[in-house]
Amino acid sequence: MLTRIDHVGIACHDLEAAISFYESAFGLAVVSRERNTDQGISEAMLRVADAPAGTSYVQLLEPLGPDTPVGRFLARHGEGVHHIGYGVADITAALAAIGATGVRLLDARPRHGSMGASIAFLHPKDVGGVLTELVQAAQPT
Amino acid sequence: MLTRIDHVGIACHDLEAAISFYESAFGLAVVSRERNTDQGISEAMLRVADAPAGTSYVQLLEPLGPDTPVGRFLARHGEGVHHIGYGVADITAALAAIGATGVRLLDARPRHGSMGASIAFLHPKDVGGVLTELVQAAQPT
Repeated sequence: MLTRIDHVGIACHDLEAAISFYESAFGLAVVSRERNTDQGISEAMLRVADAPAGTSYVQLLEPLGPDTPVGRFLARHGEGVHHIGYGVADITAALAAIGATGVRLLDARPRHGSMGASIAFLHPKDVGGVLTELVQAAQPT
Repeated sequence: MLTRIDHVGIACHDLEAAISFYESAFGLAVVSRERNTDQGISEAMLRVADAPAGTSYVQLLEPLGPDTPVGRFLARHGEGVHHIGYGVADITAALAAIGATGVRLLDARPRHGSMGASIAFLHPKDVGGVLTELVQAAQPT
């Protein structure tokens, strides 16, 4: 069902500083930047690796304000890993299958994510404390 | 420098329960189980995807006791993402390059990790709150 680790979502206070760090320390490069007012974030996707099942990224997330999910995460936990995104080939089928095992779906239906992907989040309390995202990329890469 | 997201390291109270969950909800399969007394963990590696640069895993970690790094993590944070492991082709060269940027190395020299890999951890305070591991796999896969 899972085709890859699509991305690691990392919450940061200062997106520009975090991008500079990942560029200089690890040699990653930004491939997409977006501002998503629905999710309350300004974000950047940095490519880690291409593979037949799709590309893997580090996703850096700066909240648009304190009263957003990532803003509240930063206030509680400080900077760090916010969520893990796994690739799936068919997100609607994956949601149905996972939901049938009893995992609560934060998104019962897919919504728009980074880079044109269809995404949905699973309840972290049902996934061992891990906020887990499913990602069906916009097109095979 | 980074060749892949090698694994997501997830701390759990009950390894058997966590394995069963990842098997049933996501269809992952265990490919390796180890008890590492140096690190104070009992662990399982579950394959997410194979790719030319190497395999990606979910790594489930149960502490061998409360007075271990993962035991203390669980006491402070509860279950969840403990660290992120990135693949590198040459861990000695990667440590030198990353250390030269000012990131503190928790392991100045590589040590033995899961499945025969050479691994080293970077200080989370220098990596935006993310405990970050470098992984040179035992052999190209």
